[in-house]
Amino acid sequence: MFRSDVRQYLSVYLVMDLSGHEGKSALEIARAALDGGVTMIQLREKKAPLSRVIEEGRALRELCRKYGVPFLVNDRVDVALALNADGVHVGQDDLPGSEARKLLGVDKIIGISAGTMAEAEWAMAQGADYLGVGAVYSTLTKGDAGAPIGTGLISEIKQRWPHISMVGIGGIDASNASPVIQAGADGVAVVSAIVRQSDPCLAARQLKQEICPGRS
Amino acid sequence: MFRSDVRQYLSVYLVMDLSGHEGKSALEIARAALDGGVTMIQLREKKAPLSRVIEEGRALRELCRKYGVPFLVNDRVDVALALNADGVHVGQDDLPGSEARKLLGVDKIIGISAGTMAEAEWAMAQGADYLGVGAVYSTLTKGDAGAPIGTGLISEIKQRWPHISMVGIGGIDASNASPVIQAGADGVAVVSAIVRQSDPCLAARQLKQEICPGRS
Repeated sequence: MFRSDVRQYLSVYLVMDLSGHEGKSALEIARAALDGGVTMIQLREKKAPLSRVIEEGRALRELCRKYGVPFLVNDRVDVALALNADGVHVGQDDLPGSEARKLLGVDKIIGISAGTMAEAEWAMAQGADYLGVGAVYSTLTKGDAGAPIGTGLISEIKQRWPHISMVGIGGIDASNASPVIQAGADGVAVVSAIVRQSDPCLAARQLKQEICPGRS
Repeated sequence: MFRSDVRQYLSVYLVMDLSGHEGKSALEIARAALDGGVTMIQLREKKAPLSRVIEEGRALRELCRKYGVPFLVNDRVDVALALNADGVHVGQDDLPGSEARKLLGVDKIIGISAGTMAEAEWAMAQGADYLGVGAVYSTLTKGDAGAPIGTGLISEIKQRWPHISMVGIGGIDASNASPVIQAGADGVAVVSAIVRQSDPCLAARQLKQEICPGRS
């Protein structure tokens, strides 16, 4: 199951919505990113009608299955259930991880966001399979991401819970990913660094090269 | 089960959030409204962290159980599942009713909003147990409710699907509820007419008297 091996899927974690970019559909971007080596995909769509999220999410879900890559849904556990996604990623204001677990069962991945040590403690208490820590750098993608916190919290979390899997998120690309990994993250979650690039496949490959220099 | 008898629970349908009013908590308002004869309650909370929705929703849910009144959750099927609510009410942009049904099983109530005949057709195709039709009158409660449509659509829906259960919603109170019932609705869904009154119990009783003059 993906859940027990979640750490290995965190290297290059693509977070995306359904809006596409410069004529490319979300599905096309996802396919290119998977070809480039993306290891996990999260659908974070906050605006579209859920009928569209279900329809297009189903295609993304099938694509991920073909590539053997986990597919997660942001926030909405009901949408994750409807899509039979591999898990959810929830923020501090979303359904608590413990409630999500009851609905999803033991096989699904539950990731939880943390921007402070107190939030990380809460996430750990809720039974997070991995933490999404940030915003590491400043980002324009997520309006409510708050001021950047750098990599310090990742180091502190790594010291407190050496076993927990973790990604950094927020303004990360190939040029600044290394410090995130050096601080203790297992990978990076990115939006713009892949979605908004003219060649998402190449962008994913460069990120992967930066995170996992030994692997192609 | 509530679902097969949903029509009888629609008479005075209270839609509320968790914000309370003038020093009264949401739970206190709900209790007063139930004492006044409210026949169904829907929790429609769009802003609070879901951890709070779960916690306070659980208390509302228990209260409704004591009164033998169905408790529904707006939009979030996952929250409805977590609270073991008696159903959900979904809008046109929410999870489609057919998807909600798969997640909720056959015993739960699914209500769907409709503001046009096309939306009513979609709701019927999705397997709605009842329709919430409006906004009948102008309302300040729901910013995205759109311009008031009067009672004409209720009459049209009643002609097209005489068997479907239906409430009017939007700006309804004891003074203007009668035309909604005369047009074919089984009841009225209200927010302000109960929640924002100094005596929610009395307000509920007056509404009930207007809708069901034969019953106390």
